[in-house]
Amino acid sequence: MVAVDVNLILVQLFFLVLLGLLAAVICQRFKVPVVVGEILVGIGISNIFINGSSLATVLNLVPSQPGYDFLNLLAQLGIIFLLFGVGLVTPFSELRQIGRMSILVALLGVILPFFAGLAAMIGFGYDVKIGVFMGAAMVATSVGITARVVHDLGRTETIEARVIIAAAVIDDVMGLIVLALVSGISKGGALNVADIAVVASLAVLFVLVVMYISTLVPKARRTLPVMSVMKKQQVKKHWSPLPFALIICFGLSALAAYLNLAAIVGAFLAGMLFAEFRDVWPTAEKFGPINEFLVPFFFLFVGIQVDISSFGTEGILLLMVVIIVIAILTKVVGCGLGAWKLGRRSATVVGVGMIPRGEVGIIVATIGLSSGVIQNDLYTTVVAMSLVTTLVAPPLISYAFKRKERHVVKRAPSREE
Amino acid sequence: MVAVDVNLILVQLFFLVLLGLLAAVICQRFKVPVVVGEILVGIGISNIFINGSSLATVLNLVPSQPGYDFLNLLAQLGIIFLLFGVGLVTPFSELRQIGRMSILVALLGVILPFFAGLAAMIGFGYDVKIGVFMGAAMVATSVGITARVVHDLGRTETIEARVIIAAAVIDDVMGLIVLALVSGISKGGALNVADIAVVASLAVLFVLVVMYISTLVPKARRTLPVMSVMKKQQVKKHWSPLPFALIICFGLSALAAYLNLAAIVGAFLAGMLFAEFRDVWPTAEKFGPINEFLVPFFFLFVGIQVDISSFGTEGILLLMVVIIVIAILTKVVGCGLGAWKLGRRSATVVGVGMIPRGEVGIIVATIGLSSGVIQNDLYTTVVAMSLVTTLVAPPLISYAFKRKERHVVKRAPSREE
Repeated sequence: MVAVDVNLILVQLFFLVLLGLLAAVICQRFKVPVVVGEILVGIGISNIFINGSSLATVLNLVPSQPGYDFLNLLAQLGIIFLLFGVGLVTPFSELRQIGRMSILVALLGVILPFFAGLAAMIGFGYDVKIGVFMGAAMVATSVGITARVVHDLGRTETIEARVIIAAAVIDDVMGLIVLALVSGISKGGALNVADIAVVASLAVLFVLVVMYISTLVPKARRTLPVMSVMKKQQVKKHWSPLPFALIICFGLSALAAYLNLAAIVGAFLAGMLFAEFRDVWPTAEKFGPINEFLVPFFFLFVGIQVDISSFGTEGILLLMVVIIVIAILTKVVGCGLGAWKLGRRSATVVGVGMIPRGEVGIIVATIGLSSGVIQNDLYTTVVAMSLVTTLVAPPLISYAFKRKERHVVKRAPSREE
Repeated sequence: MVAVDVNLILVQLFFLVLLGLLAAVICQRFKVPVVVGEILVGIGISNIFINGSSLATVLNLVPSQPGYDFLNLLAQLGIIFLLFGVGLVTPFSELRQIGRMSILVALLGVILPFFAGLAAMIGFGYDVKIGVFMGAAMVATSVGITARVVHDLGRTETIEARVIIAAAVIDDVMGLIVLALVSGISKGGALNVADIAVVASLAVLFVLVVMYISTLVPKARRTLPVMSVMKKQQVKKHWSPLPFALIICFGLSALAAYLNLAAIVGAFLAGMLFAEFRDVWPTAEKFGPINEFLVPFFFLFVGIQVDISSFGTEGILLLMVVIIVIAILTKVVGCGLGAWKLGRRSATVVGVGMIPRGEVGIIVATIGLSSGVIQNDLYTTVVAMSLVTTLVAPPLISYAFKRKERHVVKRAPSREE
């Protein structure tokens, strides 16, 4: 029997929920998005030391302990369900309207950071291989952070939020191609074009197939007799949508992960697919409380994984600042340009919404460090970049949304004058 | 980094939810409680072998694998939340009315199986020490099974259900004392009376203190200014009850586990305590979807843990049948007598509701086996007893409830004639 201690995990859950609530109370008081507080509390848990030990060590919340793994998995479930929920309010028909713009936003938001990062590294005297690596770490937007902030602000159904989420998903597909490229580099320098092509086309195919199936659903529901059964009141009453939703969500998430895509991409697509049954089954209501329980663990965990002591200061500080500024500006400018059609203020919302890199950049950095392409100073730089973009984005998104809406409100009465 | 494979866990979750749904569909078709189907599916997952490997081995759902532990912990969370939910609809004021009866039900339901089991073992030629062990394994009712069946039948708020749950909780406290006794035996034969007294009084004290605090809540809410803040509409709107409920639930569960009580006893008491705030916060709605997601994992897991190959047939079969019959009859008669005041048909519901032993008996058997007090044949007997009582109870509870209600309906019109 493995030493899985349910009692210890109950204690860990108790403290995490307690500290999460504390963060929420303080954030609401100062009108800061709750997700910022959760990440900071997470950082505090593993980085504030009293008498030489942090709360994480006291609670045994350290890597390679069963409790740590368990909470990590709860966090993963949370982020998967969060993206499923975002998919649920993003029916395909509407995504099609914003599809072209989202592709443009994603493309510009990948190209600009990548080349700006590469150029900066070369400017600082590093070689091209390392430059490519840093550029790659700056590419992928953390759709989780943005989705949560937008959700907390009650803006999930705005056009800007939809463009951001769709672009972030496309981003993830492109991020996968970049990751394959980076893995190629770290495995010995030679870029295996054939491998990259296979991974990339599988990923694109997966997304397109699921989207195509989504488009078939309305037609199938009208014509197939099996599907029309669902309309009956009896079915609605007897069968909860939850198991069906879970099966599609877990199935597509696992499939996405199997294709080396992020599991959350599958979860988002599953939500989009299930949204086609929205009229029969009010699924979103079911995921509300489940996500309220699970999602905070994800953001607490993003914080807990940060090790502040790795932030060295041996001359790397200037590079760090330059990289962070580039990371922020390239997304705002690149993605903002992509969404320019929506108007200047909405384009700013989209640009700002694409800033957070979160865990994706950290994954790239971990690969680079473990394969020896980058050293600890550059790893620290990537972690700092991920962290700052993650912390800076929520208040900026909140501000950009309010600025845009204030503008709309201000103009509205002037017409009546 | 520990080898926790999120992708594998997604695949495991996918198959478990799929098979759980299948069980639910079949059970609903044949009007059998869903929990029976889930346990049977669980048994099938780890005991149906195709080409020498079960689905459990294919999915890597075997002990000491991270995925197995993770799903086990999800299952534990599910059963904790289920009992919290049961507590939520059991306010203390009503429990007080049925308290005396519940104590009587619990007492008779502990004494009868214990001594009948002891006597049967002596009759079969075993010595007293082993007899005490078997008696102990037959004592504790699995409140989880009954709570789920009653919930699925939509009868959670009936007087019978309340008596059963309250008695099962008291049962658990007595079961703890019995377990301490058994551990004493297995540690070398000498019963350390002082140790047992300490454990027992701590347990009773814990239950009484939490119940006492529950009684203070209504008064505190009227008089303390901090508490009256909660009445404000603003607070209701801004603050979800979920984090508060989770904190109390995890806190008391951990405390109960720390006192060597079952964590679910703490969860039940936490729900009872939180029920005093029912008017302000509709907490039950929040736990509905969460439990719908988590609870099936518990019953799938009860099944997965069963190893049918351990059911030997070397002469032990007669003893097995006798023990199972005793296990069922003593609870029906003992607990039924305890609830006789409710009328014959309601007393039957209570008696039948106390039958399932579930995981508690298996825990006792595991201790006995690992300490060498009992051998594999008796271990098998205890597992079979737990399993049969668990499988037999749901349809019986369902039938007893219906018989009682049919009787009530039949009599009602006759008055009007």
